[in-house]
Amino acid sequence: MENIKIRPALKSDSKSILRLINELAEFEKLDPPDSRGKRRIIKDAFSGKPLFNVLLAESNGDILGYAFYFFTYSSFLAKKTLYLEDIFISGKFRNKGIGKLFFADLKRIAKKNKCGRMEWVVLDWNKNAIEFYTKLGAEELKMWKTFRLKL
Amino acid sequence: MENIKIRPALKSDSKSILRLINELAEFEKLDPPDSRGKRRIIKDAFSGKPLFNVLLAESNGDILGYAFYFFTYSSFLAKKTLYLEDIFISGKFRNKGIGKLFFADLKRIAKKNKCGRMEWVVLDWNKNAIEFYTKLGAEELKMWKTFRLKL
Repeated sequence: MENIKIRPALKSDSKSILRLINELAEFEKLDPPDSRGKRRIIKDAFSGKPLFNVLLAESNGDILGYAFYFFTYSSFLAKKTLYLEDIFISGKFRNKGIGKLFFADLKRIAKKNKCGRMEWVVLDWNKNAIEFYTKLGAEELKMWKTFRLKL
Repeated sequence: MENIKIRPALKSDSKSILRLINELAEFEKLDPPDSRGKRRIIKDAFSGKPLFNVLLAESNGDILGYAFYFFTYSSFLAKKTLYLEDIFISGKFRNKGIGKLFFADLKRIAKKNKCGRMEWVVLDWNKNAIEFYTKLGAEELKMWKTFRLKL
């Protein structure tokens, strides 16, 4: 892999982003967004007031992976948190250091925005990802349980 | 308790909010924000572009509890999520239905904003809260582990 760079996504990257979202859903054994959901994602990412930010990993014009992030808030730190909603690297491009490049850029963005933390979730069976996150110095929040109410 | 109402906080409620944040920290056995953190919270809540929203429970001029929330995003639903960062009701006002009033208002706000979900975290020893959330119809996300990287 040569010249891998991490850069903000443009609306013209939409097709590549949606292709990778499908790959992520397959990998996570979850249903991908339907076609209306896909239209909403693109609108929500590239409207005048985006609901989340998209970073891409690119090498010689090929899009190899993506990260979706936004800012949340920790009341106890009284600082923003960079929340990583998705990070995904297409199958054949894994174990080439692209995850590290994404995290380096995300840490830079988080510090620039005076965040106290970065947070994200991972499926419990995804041992490779958990090992990677642990090596980065991240810790699992074992005392906190997450609750969800469907609307 | 008479005339309990849930309403958005104003900057003039700052003192009551900070008093309740101290009570929450004590209840959760965590350190409250220091004085600089408290100044940041008030600035971040009431600036021209607030980083989070504050609801208060009030009865005859007394502030009994608060909720901090903001919007995150679910890429798989392609919809916003209402994330409840804090909900706290002062000791002697618990078990009077104030939590239900907060959740009713939060659900109304979430639906108005076309959210697909509400999410929040709870400390694993807080059995009363977990029972309350379960009765509301919320479910614990057991497959997902939360990771945090301190910056």
